Amino acid sequence: MTAETETFLAEAAALLGPRGLTRDADLVTPWLTDWRGRYTGAALALASPASTEEVAGLVKLCARHGVPIVPQGGNSGMSGGATPDASGRAILLSLRRMTAIGPVDADARQVTCEAGVVLQNLHAAAEAAGLRFPLTLGGKGSATIGGLISTNAGGTQVLRHGVMRALVLGIEAVLPDGSVYSALTPLKKDNRGFDLKQLFIGAEGTLGIVTGATVKLVPALADRVVAWVGLPSIHAARALLLHCEANAGNLLEGFEVMPQACLEAVLDYLPDSRNPLAGQHAWHALIELAANADTAASLRERAEALLAEAFERGLAEDAVLSASEAQAEAFWMLRDSVSPAERAKGPAMQHDISVPVAAMADFVATAAPAIEAEFPGTQALGFGHLGDGNIHFHVLAPKGVVHSEWAEGQGKAISARVHDLVTAAQGSISAEHGIGQMKRDELARLGDPVALNLLRQVKKALDPNGLMNPGKLLAQGSPTA
Amino acid sequence: MTAETETFLAEAAALLGPRGLTRDADLVTPWLTDWRGRYTGAALALASPASTEEVAGLVKLCARHGVPIVPQGGNSGMSGGATPDASGRAILLSLRRMTAIGPVDADARQVTCEAGVVLQNLHAAAEAAGLRFPLTLGGKGSATIGGLISTNAGGTQVLRHGVMRALVLGIEAVLPDGSVYSALTPLKKDNRGFDLKQLFIGAEGTLGIVTGATVKLVPALADRVVAWVGLPSIHAARALLLHCEANAGNLLEGFEVMPQACLEAVLDYLPDSRNPLAGQHAWHALIELAANADTAASLRERAEALLAEAFERGLAEDAVLSASEAQAEAFWMLRDSVSPAERAKGPAMQHDISVPVAAMADFVATAAPAIEAEFPGTQALGFGHLGDGNIHFHVLAPKGVVHSEWAEGQGKAISARVHDLVTAAQGSISAEHGIGQMKRDELARLGDPVALNLLRQVKKALDPNGLMNPGKLLAQGSPTA
Repeated sequence: MTAETETFLAEAAALLGPRGLTRDADLVTPWLTDWRGRYTGAALALASPASTEEVAGLVKLCARHGVPIVPQGGNSGMSGGATPDASGRAILLSLRRMTAIGPVDADARQVTCEAGVVLQNLHAAAEAAGLRFPLTLGGKGSATIGGLISTNAGGTQVLRHGVMRALVLGIEAVLPDGSVYSALTPLKKDNRGFDLKQLFIGAEGTLGIVTGATVKLVPALADRVVAWVGLPSIHAARALLLHCEANAGNLLEGFEVMPQACLEAVLDYLPDSRNPLAGQHAWHALIELAANADTAASLRERAEALLAEAFERGLAEDAVLSASEAQAEAFWMLRDSVSPAERAKGPAMQHDISVPVAAMADFVATAAPAIEAEFPGTQALGFGHLGDGNIHFHVLAPKGVVHSEWAEGQGKAISARVHDLVTAAQGSISAEHGIGQMKRDELARLGDPVALNLLRQVKKALDPNGLMNPGKLLAQGSPTA
Repeated sequence: MTAETETFLAEAAALLGPRGLTRDADLVTPWLTDWRGRYTGAALALASPASTEEVAGLVKLCARHGVPIVPQGGNSGMSGGATPDASGRAILLSLRRMTAIGPVDADARQVTCEAGVVLQNLHAAAEAAGLRFPLTLGGKGSATIGGLISTNAGGTQVLRHGVMRALVLGIEAVLPDGSVYSALTPLKKDNRGFDLKQLFIGAEGTLGIVTGATVKLVPALADRVVAWVGLPSIHAARALLLHCEANAGNLLEGFEVMPQACLEAVLDYLPDSRNPLAGQHAWHALIELAANADTAASLRERAEALLAEAFERGLAEDAVLSASEAQAEAFWMLRDSVSPAERAKGPAMQHDISVPVAAMADFVATAAPAIEAEFPGTQALGFGHLGDGNIHFHVLAPKGVVHSEWAEGQGKAISARVHDLVTAAQGSISAEHGIGQMKRDELARLGDPVALNLLRQVKKALDPNGLMNPGKLLAQGSPTA
């Protein structure tokens, strides 16, 4: 360790105190590997500041000593965005001690909280005030608000409520020079120049450290019903989605799809689970209709009418409506278990892709057989958020391969091919999981050069020394022209 | 004219042809003054490219010759943002020839159009497809989509549908180096880095030229009712707003307020107009409830119940519900005539301000008498979008002053005082009209230095030579630190 590094660590320790800075391997190591176990890095130390002021102080120290910073929330990201590289030069900056949630403003339907608040705790705070924070996802027990903002998270309620960007009303962020950009004031309208807070949403910590946010809440749900529908094809699912969008009004809360093979894997994987429908269907849709106090009285009636009309119009082969909240939960459990069930089956390459909503059925119907033909023995499955034009397109390895070898070899070729197909369909290679380190080179390969140049220009302007989460989203030291 | 300027003009003429470039004073002069007549500038020529390629070609020419560019849409902006300075060095770039509207995608509820499309033509195109573009404002007959995006326009439907930013799904823009950033592909979810299109929304042409956009449409309205409500105070209006937000669900389309003095000015100004209510009330609210096909059947019944409950709870002194579409229009005409009626009365300083929604009643109730006390003979009136926390706070001159002298002298002092009060209330000196040249110095005086520095850093990164709408939003050649 150089003398300068020692000086830096001593100054950081003095600033943050013993709870705020540690080099104890037992405490640091668990956070150096991403939760999917794909990436492992090293760090100079783990910093856990307790306030925005401490974050700002640390960032200033890092700027002065040229120490890179890797911010981390719940360490539940999907693309390795919160894992440092192997150099050990960076400090790992955890926001997990910043967990304050301000009073819920029920009139304005908003709340301000610190970046380290865990999603399910925000859910609870909103519920306690008779409201709801309408974004949720599998990692809600660990994902933090700062991480959700930095990755512009999606989830299963995007169809009605939008992605994280649509729910963020204000942001506080520490900039690369240690100054604090504070825009937590909840103004509904503010046209003093372009909207700076947008820069930090989805930037994966490359432009600064999100330390707090004001987020939008919506009325609590009074009731919901979940339909499970059997369908002959993904195109039928698309037709059913349009039917729901046209006729369910603002009751439509979610529309998820999976092919029969995914459902079978889930039924094998989940003890005591059962197929909601009697027969076999090529595709399945889970449709959630949800009502607040205003519309709850007629919810079930409207859901029944919606499905009845879908049958009349030949849009569904079979369907069942949840008869209780327990059954609604059971249907969602089937959907939420697709990923773990698949992992239990063996290695797979996962792709979080989007194409224009209208093009998704065609994409899945053609890309899956194309991949299976090109890579014999693989199985290609698309499932997820059809209503958002966002499918998780997973390609399962041929039987008997060794995971790591396959992933590095054929797996990479498969991903490149999937990304080529997505790009040809004017889609995105990252719909909701971000770029991180996992897709950085693919973004560089396939991204629009004009857009990449803009990303680099802004990055260089705000972080000229490249200390904020280096190597994520963009390669380090990319040329700016 | 220098030889280089002559070369530039010759090259531009060759690029754009006779319809695309003119120096004819009869054709250029009308566009050198903003529609409110506050600012007049000069320009080298008026360029009217017919395509994105022509815009890109012109921007490249300007970059090569160092010619500043002032983009202009309908020239209906409120802050002088589309008027060149007096130097005559800049070229005025009109987008008005780019008026193509693509086919409406009724399934996805979106449409792509060029920047020069006039708002009411977009309204018509959406209506023809059974949909609606839910942003409107007084200047809809001249305001263009590019201008509305560049100023992040608001209007009277923001309460339900949001500002322009919420309606823009994709953008095409020509960057300062002449490259074309094209993100018109309507992906609902795309996390390839921070969202670059946000940079061009509300940037007032300082980062590039918006040449096209994909915008969101909503279901057509099947019916609406408009209530006119008499109220004892602005605080009562706030209580009524909360009542409506809690009980009208997603029917609430607009909530506008005005004091008695504004209504009286309108009644004096508009021939054949009449007070909707019999008695006098300190404040008036216009409430629009609107339904699509789904909810239309019960609309009037729900509106009546909403008002009945408001009376029961003592939230209103008197109220009337529009009995016909003609009456609904007549109520809106009263609201829309506040500005012209006020102009007819004499000079005034206009302030387009926002504060947190919950603080607006207090702000109006204290700021108006404070200004009138400090500047004897003036009359301070707040009216407009209470539901958005956005009030147009106008201060009428004392009787008998000469407009221009008063505006430059006491008027400036009044504006500074209003902006001080807004800043103290954590508000914005530009809620929806933008900064342009009118509020540039006030933004520099009162803006958060960290935010201003960020604006400058991004501006310098994207437009290092300062050729894009120079002197708007930020002063030319501002230091970056």
